[in-house]
Amino acid sequence: MTRIAINRLVHLRRLHVKSQAIAFTEFGDPTKVLKLHEYSINTDPVANPNSILVKFLAWPINPADINQIEGVYPSKPVFHSNLSETPLAIGGNEGVCKVVETGKDVIGFKPGDWAVMQKVSVGTWRTYAECTPDQLTLVPSKGNTEVQAATISVNPCTAYRMLKDFADMKPGDFFIQNGANSGVGRAAIQLGRLWGFRSINVVRNRPQLGDLIADLKSIGADAVVTDEEISGREFRSSLKEITQGSPVKLALNCIGGKSTLNIARQLSPGGHLVTYGAMAKQPITLPPSLFIFKDIHCHGEWVTAWSNRHPKEKQQMIQEILALYRNGEFKDVPVEEFIWKETDSAETKYNLFMKALNNYIAGGHNKQLCLIK
Amino acid sequence: MTRIAINRLVHLRRLHVKSQAIAFTEFGDPTKVLKLHEYSINTDPVANPNSILVKFLAWPINPADINQIEGVYPSKPVFHSNLSETPLAIGGNEGVCKVVETGKDVIGFKPGDWAVMQKVSVGTWRTYAECTPDQLTLVPSKGNTEVQAATISVNPCTAYRMLKDFADMKPGDFFIQNGANSGVGRAAIQLGRLWGFRSINVVRNRPQLGDLIADLKSIGADAVVTDEEISGREFRSSLKEITQGSPVKLALNCIGGKSTLNIARQLSPGGHLVTYGAMAKQPITLPPSLFIFKDIHCHGEWVTAWSNRHPKEKQQMIQEILALYRNGEFKDVPVEEFIWKETDSAETKYNLFMKALNNYIAGGHNKQLCLIK
Repeated sequence: MTRIAINRLVHLRRLHVKSQAIAFTEFGDPTKVLKLHEYSINTDPVANPNSILVKFLAWPINPADINQIEGVYPSKPVFHSNLSETPLAIGGNEGVCKVVETGKDVIGFKPGDWAVMQKVSVGTWRTYAECTPDQLTLVPSKGNTEVQAATISVNPCTAYRMLKDFADMKPGDFFIQNGANSGVGRAAIQLGRLWGFRSINVVRNRPQLGDLIADLKSIGADAVVTDEEISGREFRSSLKEITQGSPVKLALNCIGGKSTLNIARQLSPGGHLVTYGAMAKQPITLPPSLFIFKDIHCHGEWVTAWSNRHPKEKQQMIQEILALYRNGEFKDVPVEEFIWKETDSAETKYNLFMKALNNYIAGGHNKQLCLIK
Repeated sequence: MTRIAINRLVHLRRLHVKSQAIAFTEFGDPTKVLKLHEYSINTDPVANPNSILVKFLAWPINPADINQIEGVYPSKPVFHSNLSETPLAIGGNEGVCKVVETGKDVIGFKPGDWAVMQKVSVGTWRTYAECTPDQLTLVPSKGNTEVQAATISVNPCTAYRMLKDFADMKPGDFFIQNGANSGVGRAAIQLGRLWGFRSINVVRNRPQLGDLIADLKSIGADAVVTDEEISGREFRSSLKEITQGSPVKLALNCIGGKSTLNIARQLSPGGHLVTYGAMAKQPITLPPSLFIFKDIHCHGEWVTAWSNRHPKEKQQMIQEILALYRNGEFKDVPVEEFIWKETDSAETKYNLFMKALNNYIAGGHNKQLCLIK
């Protein structure tokens, strides 16, 4: 066959690409409402001059994805009516994909490019997708791993914004955070270290606490303490020893309840508490005196809303963090990978996903992440 | 007698002025630790060239005064060792006084001038005091009543700062407040009205609710609602009717507990909750989603700390509010006066004070205020 004939054949085959997706038709318990859905993408470049056909390379399971399927997340998924008889939403908000083909009017994207999602609710838990250029942010296709690109948009960006936007942090200043072993927590430690901010990291007590402390210190944690240690008044003297008079200007909270009070209490006068998660599913309960007499300020961080307001800055932030990864200044978040081979049956893919989902629900696992080979 | 001889006599008499004060030698229950203390002020102008002898005209009993006597207030009273054998603190932080005599080196004050306290902890619950110029802020001695001047420093200033400093309020914007019938609440309604801000005022249900609603509306309240009314989801439609699409940018909180949640929930996205009191003695408990997804911010207001940081602006603010009173644009806070006549015995003065203190503790009374005649 001639080269032209081969291309023609490839093209004909690609007029329809089969995609497999983890999808749902109604809100509810993710273990019950999620199904593997197969559908066909029409890739005719004449019919879709502004479309980009992408193949997903990797995507994680994040807490917000689960809340979205449960119907309790403020940013709602898109229910597509053209993918099946019943309108259907595809799970997942974060991930990295590779451009396969571009419509004839698309500018700035070419086959082989890597991209992450510019906004949420695209539905990343699938093999292929038809996107529009405004849904995608190009990222370097060399030098960064699939895992780095697939997990860049939520956790490192959340940590970045919290350290930059609330407390006018200067080199030498301290921040304190609970859930310090989370993806955001690890990103905050590392970004903080790069910017000269020092961190007091609160974790739950556990059997191999020493290993975790060593691990967090290896990425730049200045102090690692347990929830129990900081809950008593005797921690005051330890805090003085750690900070040596430097202020604790910022507290990052992803837990709620007592844990939030514990970190808020360590703030210096005028400090800022920023909440970005609620793992304990408990409210934030603080004494009025912390506000009136200690002049503490409370805020929230939702990087989705920030990104919608600052699309350009979001892209720059992603490029900046990916560069830190490439320069070895930022370490990957630990993940537990599961692999979807293209040739795997729908049933195999579904079973692999469900195992990862159950790991997520059970807790105590690293971030669950799908690699598509 | 010649004129000079009379002046000489007055002067000789004034070398010692007798003052009576409500004072305490140890922290504790105000009904137990407060005593009436008599002491002598040496007014020799040679020995005290930088002193100002003042006679108090009026002073209120404020919540902070009580907390200070109990020893639970962050701003501690001064224990004087020159007024009695045991070091002794004089109660009260707010009040208006008249200059009686000035030391020979004092500039800017003359007999007959009126002044309020520039800072807290001077101890205003007394008849006479020896002050230094930096402790006093001159106020007009004509056009304002003793009650207005004696109650200007805490409540109207707190309301002023909260409306100005947190939410970038513009004419037409709404604020919501609990404890709307308090001194601060009434000041906020009136200052808000003058600046074009509209108010939603939350009060406790009570027998004569209609009278209170009419009263608050007469000073400029746009809406008056009860705690019960705003606690249910059905208030959403009422809120829409009240605001007609204008944002609720600010919530002022002096209660705590459920009442705080109730007003925080009415805030528009990006709104600010400012706490200045804790009448219910309950913590502030808010769901994390209010911070993360609704972008609510929480702060505290302590006008004492603000005044220490901004002494000049504090003086200007006081003059501005006193001018509003004189122009009839600002109505007095309702007070319950008790009168100390100079000729009253120490016992009578003490009994009058204790009656007012017990009224304060019982609650349900207007602000207790002493006038010295």
